[in-house]
Amino acid sequence: MITNKKSILRLSKYKKALTRLHSMGFKKVFSDNLADAIGVTPSQVRKDFSIFDLSGHKKGGYLIDDLIHKINKILGKEEVEKVIIVGCGNIGTALMRYNGFEKEFIKIVAAFDNNPAKIDNDSQIPILPIEEMHDFIIKEKIRTAVLAVPDQAAQHVVDILVNAGIKGVLNFSPLYLRVPEDFIISNVNLEVELEGVIYFVNAMPTSSEKDSEEINNE
Amino acid sequence: MITNKKSILRLSKYKKALTRLHSMGFKKVFSDNLADAIGVTPSQVRKDFSIFDLSGHKKGGYLIDDLIHKINKILGKEEVEKVIIVGCGNIGTALMRYNGFEKEFIKIVAAFDNNPAKIDNDSQIPILPIEEMHDFIIKEKIRTAVLAVPDQAAQHVVDILVNAGIKGVLNFSPLYLRVPEDFIISNVNLEVELEGVIYFVNAMPTSSEKDSEEINNE
Repeated sequence: MITNKKSILRLSKYKKALTRLHSMGFKKVFSDNLADAIGVTPSQVRKDFSIFDLSGHKKGGYLIDDLIHKINKILGKEEVEKVIIVGCGNIGTALMRYNGFEKEFIKIVAAFDNNPAKIDNDSQIPILPIEEMHDFIIKEKIRTAVLAVPDQAAQHVVDILVNAGIKGVLNFSPLYLRVPEDFIISNVNLEVELEGVIYFVNAMPTSSEKDSEEINNE
Repeated sequence: MITNKKSILRLSKYKKALTRLHSMGFKKVFSDNLADAIGVTPSQVRKDFSIFDLSGHKKGGYLIDDLIHKINKILGKEEVEKVIIVGCGNIGTALMRYNGFEKEFIKIVAAFDNNPAKIDNDSQIPILPIEEMHDFIIKEKIRTAVLAVPDQAAQHVVDILVNAGIKGVLNFSPLYLRVPEDFIISNVNLEVELEGVIYFVNAMPTSSEKDSEEINNE
């Protein structure tokens, strides 16, 4: 199935909105509701749903339970996906403590750091020495990692991940990382994002239409 | 000046690469070096530089010091930009401890939380009660905020920020927030980003060209 990142990311957002509606006791939802919830047009919602073959009754709307189930299936969330975090600095540690992932069928099974002082086998998520990462990835058949190491270590660490069989990384390093063609990297650069906001805020007094539109990471 | 987010974000990335080269003792750089450093084509670099009127000697390359200075000027980094963080959970706290911002002329001047147990006037970055946020923003003339509060609080908090005069927000909430037309929101949704990586990793065995290309938040 040929898809693009934007529609997949929207699918995740629809699911979050649906989960929220479900927790509020709602049973049905209309494309207009979902459009409002994530800030797109109703036709965009219907277009996304048709891409993924998510059907509903034009008049009757969509059954929320059913939609969540189908979207989870599309996102491969029928079973828990095991993910490792590399780098236990501020961001890495925050993500280890972050509770949002479990809901998303994402389980952080281990974290790795090269600082002996941080190694902790007994913590809820074990923090292991970076030397053990390669074997752990193979043994546990891990395919996805979060990369939250200092810039200067990023390329070295991603090489280890690639060699061990990791297929995709959520990368917090600002560096451009060299990886194989079929390797997935999603870059989150907080400094760059914040600088972008500040730039447009500063540009505002003389802001053009373009400056004043909402800017998304999409 | 009409600009788009992508070129501004690349400008930040060029600057990071330049800063790194400078710290390594380099004096000059060529568009090809910068292209490699951030993973774009040399012609893209020259195009971006022409947009922002960053000139260099075609043969002689660019002077690194000069480029950093000019880019900082474009990014409004001649003076320090004061930013507040709202929400001192895992992400908010990680950003408070994050050292990368200072280098970028971004100063986190205060954080706000509604949990009395978290209030701390004496910490390096004071953590203040959310009730004091409105007046603080006005008094300190803050224009940019990082929003790292629980989903259910996000819209309420952003309303307070808008009323107090905040012009732009880096938002970690997955919710779509209703804000004025000229208000800048840059959304960073870590769950959605990680789900995206996992989806494409899962899609790989039957991956099409589209699935296997690098996916950036740009």
